Amino acid sequence: MIVFNYYTPTEVVFGKNSEQQIAALVKKYGGKKLLLHYGGKSAERSGLLDVVRQQLKEAGIPFVELGGVVPNPLLSKVREGIALCQQEGVDFLLAVGGGSVIDSCKAIAYGLAYEGDVWDLFVGKAEPQAAYPVGCVLTIPAAGSEMSTGCVITNEEGALKRSCDGNLGRCRFAVMNPERTFTLPPFQTACGITDMMMHTLERYFSKEDDMTLTDNVAEAILRTVKELAPVVLQNPTDYRSRAQIMWAGSLAHNDLTGCGMSGDWSTHQLEHELSGMFGVAHGAGLAAVWPSWARYVCPTNVSRFVRLAVNVMGVANDFTDPEGTALRGIAAMEQFFHSIGMPVTIHELIGREIKDEEIVEMARKCSNNGSSCIGGFKTLNQDDMEKIYRMAK
Amino acid sequence: MIVFNYYTPTEVVFGKNSEQQIAALVKKYGGKKLLLHYGGKSAERSGLLDVVRQQLKEAGIPFVELGGVVPNPLLSKVREGIALCQQEGVDFLLAVGGGSVIDSCKAIAYGLAYEGDVWDLFVGKAEPQAAYPVGCVLTIPAAGSEMSTGCVITNEEGALKRSCDGNLGRCRFAVMNPERTFTLPPFQTACGITDMMMHTLERYFSKEDDMTLTDNVAEAILRTVKELAPVVLQNPTDYRSRAQIMWAGSLAHNDLTGCGMSGDWSTHQLEHELSGMFGVAHGAGLAAVWPSWARYVCPTNVSRFVRLAVNVMGVANDFTDPEGTALRGIAAMEQFFHSIGMPVTIHELIGREIKDEEIVEMARKCSNNGSSCIGGFKTLNQDDMEKIYRMAK
Repeated sequence: MIVFNYYTPTEVVFGKNSEQQIAALVKKYGGKKLLLHYGGKSAERSGLLDVVRQQLKEAGIPFVELGGVVPNPLLSKVREGIALCQQEGVDFLLAVGGGSVIDSCKAIAYGLAYEGDVWDLFVGKAEPQAAYPVGCVLTIPAAGSEMSTGCVITNEEGALKRSCDGNLGRCRFAVMNPERTFTLPPFQTACGITDMMMHTLERYFSKEDDMTLTDNVAEAILRTVKELAPVVLQNPTDYRSRAQIMWAGSLAHNDLTGCGMSGDWSTHQLEHELSGMFGVAHGAGLAAVWPSWARYVCPTNVSRFVRLAVNVMGVANDFTDPEGTALRGIAAMEQFFHSIGMPVTIHELIGREIKDEEIVEMARKCSNNGSSCIGGFKTLNQDDMEKIYRMAK
Repeated sequence: MIVFNYYTPTEVVFGKNSEQQIAALVKKYGGKKLLLHYGGKSAERSGLLDVVRQQLKEAGIPFVELGGVVPNPLLSKVREGIALCQQEGVDFLLAVGGGSVIDSCKAIAYGLAYEGDVWDLFVGKAEPQAAYPVGCVLTIPAAGSEMSTGCVITNEEGALKRSCDGNLGRCRFAVMNPERTFTLPPFQTACGITDMMMHTLERYFSKEDDMTLTDNVAEAILRTVKELAPVVLQNPTDYRSRAQIMWAGSLAHNDLTGCGMSGDWSTHQLEHELSGMFGVAHGAGLAAVWPSWARYVCPTNVSRFVRLAVNVMGVANDFTDPEGTALRGIAAMEQFFHSIGMPVTIHELIGREIKDEEIVEMARKCSNNGSSCIGGFKTLNQDDMEKIYRMAK
């Protein structure tokens, strides 16, 4: 039975010079005093931060700044942001960067509207009831946080990575200029491409199998990204291709591809342990584990893997051999990942052979000491996880 | 250069029993006293109105009712609604029906927030600055008004049909239960299917030709609707197919398929004169004129018609003969329209041969006495319009 909610209120302003609209957007959404939140030096070096500062100054919107957000954004920075905003009377948060900066901003927004400690909201001690408004200027198409409900923060004490999901976490607006992605290094571009494909695939593989429209839209996004990935890697300043990839990152994670699909998300959870243990890039970790996950769960619904093979990967359908077609589709995805410089095994990911005790440890953590399972398409227990990690090694 | 805005804030609650959430949604969006607005007897007969009334009563939300909205909704009813709402202190409008009821509701919402005469906003005498909040319970998938910016009203004095477009016209929420479409007659189902395909095609044919992702998503929607149209016509109570068609109607007109595309809209404008002169159903009028429009404008961008032929209509691509492939695609669309009971000529539409003076008169009106042109994909003047009407006769 097809039942779903769909709510994507973020106002997207997309294209060359879209930064010129930042001040008007902040005013439209009620911002009177801003936190300008960003990461490292790339936004400074590219001149983007100066463009934003200039915009805000000309519009007479006062702001304070907080930079230094790192990939896998930290709770300590979130707390610093909350204190700064309270002290300065900030009422609107503007993220300039990729998913990490946006998530850090969202966490500050939650914290400002909550009386207790913000971490409560990430460990289930309390449910967020409100959040300060957040807008963003996106520079890295990958995480999809600019339109998604998601927000992931790492607590340095215990290296706990936790999320706080919900419609309160939707950005009010997202400014997206594909030109700002021209300088992304190839590896980061490829990680982003993998991440957005996986956001689509995690929903495409669901226990439901009846939402043709969502399937067709998901395949359209996957095909587009797959076709244009080599183009942006070969010609990083190709506006047209960068634009498709950038917009695909948003559509992949704003829930359009989740309408009527409850999703799987095993690959994300299996990868979570990889990046936790080895500090690898999220996108690369996903590529390293997906093919093994796919081969392991394929018998659950072979026809779905045949769909992917034929409709996305361009594999010829051998109607007498669905399993063979399905497996050729998975192999074609591996070839694609390799072609954009992504690993398809843990060995390729971490540059050495993984030890068996490391596999056991990851499966133990991923299953909460064997007490919980993952996966909506196929339920996986601790034993399944170990097997998939071994297949992927 | 790809530049666009995308803003679809409507909260969609989709599926069986979604009506159970109406009262909660009204409260969430601040409704304290409602206008319950609807059309004829079908919503009463089906029991839907009683479900809504029961919901509102149980939640303690007071409401007044105004029924009797007709297809091509009338300004007189809008004025009646505005007066009633002012008198009763209504602060939220709930439409139960299809595009006509939703549009009538939107017009009342504009009128309540405007000091002058609401018709001013439809003839460009004033720009709407605000609108009362509107929610809807959709019963006819076709017009897409549940998520779109559009609102079309007919002024009986002079039979003027005018629109007021903008983000203020977006519904706060849309409740969509595919079961409520089970009883739609085949002709109305087919008209709706044609309308949503045309909402997609009007954007698919744009002067821009560089937004691959939008093209691929548009084709995904078109293919889904084309594949499932025969299924819903053969088995009107097939929930799964009705659900895809219903959701497709929203995605076809919420601007997803317009990202980076400025659109054409000639077919809509040519049809406008047909329904004005002959009182035909909008969807049927679109089907009657599109094939002739397509053949007339095809040389403007043959490769785009080849795309449609191959990627949507399933025509084999004859690489040595793009024109032939394109024309076979248009013929396949005609066959599709016929297969769902739609006309593909004006003769089939109105049941008699159209007179030449009628064609001349329609082209005169459509071009504002020859003073204006239509069409974004190919600009059409009065002479072009006459030629297309003649091809379609």
